[in-house]
Amino acid sequence: MVIITLLTDFGLSDNYVAQMKGVIFQNSPKSEIVDITHTVPRHNIVDAAFLLETAVPYFPNDAIHLAVVDPGVGSHRLPIVVKCRTGTLVGPDNGLLHRAASKLGFRFAYEIRARRFFAKTVSETFHGRDIFARTAALLANGISPGQVGPRLSKIVPLGISEPKFSGSELTGVVLHVDWFGNVITNIPNRFLSSYPSNGQTVRVVSGRKNWVGRHVRTYSDVARGKLALIMGGQGYVEIALREKSASEMLGLESLDVLRVIFS
Amino acid sequence: MVIITLLTDFGLSDNYVAQMKGVIFQNSPKSEIVDITHTVPRHNIVDAAFLLETAVPYFPNDAIHLAVVDPGVGSHRLPIVVKCRTGTLVGPDNGLLHRAASKLGFRFAYEIRARRFFAKTVSETFHGRDIFARTAALLANGISPGQVGPRLSKIVPLGISEPKFSGSELTGVVLHVDWFGNVITNIPNRFLSSYPSNGQTVRVVSGRKNWVGRHVRTYSDVARGKLALIMGGQGYVEIALREKSASEMLGLESLDVLRVIFS
Amino acid sequence: MVIITLLTDFGLSDNYVAQMKGVIFQNSPKSEIVDITHTVPRHNIVDAAFLLETAVPYFPNDAIHLAVVDPGVGSHRLPIVVKCRTGTLVGPDNGLLHRAASKLGFRFAYEIRARRFFAKTVSETFHGRDIFARTAALLANGISPGQVGPRLSKIVPLGISEPKFSGSELTGVVLHVDWFGNVITNIPNRFLSSYPSNGQTVRVVSGRKNWVGRHVRTYSDVARGKLALIMGGQGYVEIALREKSASEMLGLESLDVLRVIFS
Repeated sequence: MVIITLLTDFGLSDNYVAQMKGVIFQNSPKSEIVDITHTVPRHNIVDAAFLLETAVPYFPNDAIHLAVVDPGVGSHRLPIVVKCRTGTLVGPDNGLLHRAASKLGFRFAYEIRARRFFAKTVSETFHGRDIFARTAALLANGISPGQVGPRLSKIVPLGISEPKFSGSELTGVVLHVDWFGNVITNIPNRFLSSYPSNGQTVRVVSGRKNWVGRHVRTYSDVARGKLALIMGGQGYVEIALREKSASEMLGLESLDVLRVIFS
Repeated sequence: MVIITLLTDFGLSDNYVAQMKGVIFQNSPKSEIVDITHTVPRHNIVDAAFLLETAVPYFPNDAIHLAVVDPGVGSHRLPIVVKCRTGTLVGPDNGLLHRAASKLGFRFAYEIRARRFFAKTVSETFHGRDIFARTAALLANGISPGQVGPRLSKIVPLGISEPKFSGSELTGVVLHVDWFGNVITNIPNRFLSSYPSNGQTVRVVSGRKNWVGRHVRTYSDVARGKLALIMGGQGYVEIALREKSASEMLGLESLDVLRVIFS
Repeated sequence: MVIITLLTDFGLSDNYVAQMKGVIFQNSPKSEIVDITHTVPRHNIVDAAFLLETAVPYFPNDAIHLAVVDPGVGSHRLPIVVKCRTGTLVGPDNGLLHRAASKLGFRFAYEIRARRFFAKTVSETFHGRDIFARTAALLANGISPGQVGPRLSKIVPLGISEPKFSGSELTGVVLHVDWFGNVITNIPNRFLSSYPSNGQTVRVVSGRKNWVGRHVRTYSDVARGKLALIMGGQGYVEIALREKSASEMLGLESLDVLRVIFS
């Protein structure tokens, strides 16, 4: 039994994901399919890359991770398989897989080109079903990644700026706003570990906006509606409002740059 | 291991779908359940029939497809099982199953009437759980469709008008608007195959509305925000705006009639 | 093969649920995971308790039910396991599990305290992944509930007022509004069984609002848009408008008190 995880921006109101699952079960009846999410904001590769990167480490080492956020479907981006130390990634080579590959330990990447990994008729608009799902299923059956096609020397990076840490200031980018409205940055938790977390005042700045919050250990350490800066459960610094949406109150969204200033 | 697919308009915020899954696992522990979708617009049988028809061909031949969009629950519509050449359908006889039955090769239909296919207490409002889920589970266990009850000579058709093809004009009905806002018609892709698809101008007319687009192979063949007419991945002609919602921009929705005019 | 059901307020657009599933499969590869729902209104313990209580009876007796709606994560509420006559519950001791435990037959409750049930690093904000998912997986592997930690004499109740039945009047609380807009109360169906259900006029009163409806057997017994009072499929009295949202039209929501008056 091999686990195949699925992450797409196909939504839940169509049958696109179900068609992919049908193809997987047709080709690999013993697979166990697990949905990561299918409601990534459409065509948002940065958000999807974050959700993929932070989910894959929790799965068994032989899992296959199939991700499709693919605005360039039908154009020149390559369909690829990335073999990592723990796990295998399948999807378009448009930046989506890069962070997950680093997290799992990148080893080799291959272009999917061999005929058997393509459906008889390949839709111009739905490689998720006609190439990627089929490829994931065949890999789950034990076919080696090297058989999908020629090896690639590298894969496309995501292309967002690196987080910075200087004296009393951290700078990062919003990767994702979660269901609770928590704002998740690309600043690793370890950047915060040199600062005490027992309620010190911090300033959060984004563009011309500017808020005062507290650096605490957990949401419940601040009063309802107050801004908390915490080490997040995803490995990155988060900004939260207890029992409210920080994203909505602060007007922050994916790709906004922000600074955290300790005083 | 038999696959049971589920399609309903029960949404994801209740536990109705989970109750159906519980009943399936209670009666057939080795089933593999795959969700098609549960967010069909409520009571929209046409949309559901499209989503069912276009999903079922991707599943193994012995799969059982359980579909419940059932505004007439508790009234006189029959609960039925339809045995097809590839696959078996279970649901209410209200038009929902007709297109899928044609696609899979209709063979026999039966009314569910034998006592063992009904829960001890059958809720007036939830046959999905108390009749259909139980029936699907027992079929997955190997009980033959003919045992559910008396054979029916035919099932209820969906009742929408057939697509038309005349000279330089195609006429069809919108079956479904997908998550990306793509407008999917009931015009089969083959109606388009006699026209070249390298960017020719087409006119799309619906009621008094009227747009100009291009007949292309894939979304990425038009500029961002431009209207594309393509052979869709579901087997039907689609109208799309690259990286935008065609449905929203054009004000088109399920059951709208439209004409495509080649010049 | 043991079924683990999941109910959370984590939504479907993050990967929190997937991380929990990854942890379950890492620790118990043969589990079968079934989602109850993940779109409980955030932090709404009453709504979640209703959805849990009404789903669990449909699952096999050895199922493990993992529920996480946990506004107090990181504070003093206890992580618990509740062993019932039919099934086992895992989650925070904040009222969430109480109704389900009563429904399944409460036997013993235990605080999760033994080290092996905790991830190496426990996030302050995500016990669902780092404690509860791991515990559910280990229970699915056959570890006995008594091994998780010390036995508790009782668990925290939900704390809503009991339904009342006096002469020609029923009083209850709205537990849940479903996807169709049906308003589900905490009044058990049996309170209605002494009244005939063939269309009698009833009055429904909530605060200063006041409507006239009919006591019927099923939605289709009233005309479209008319108010129906029925014995619901969940075991509780429901107020519905045929093919419309009763919740929206009447302005009723979770925790509103209402009275039903027979004349």
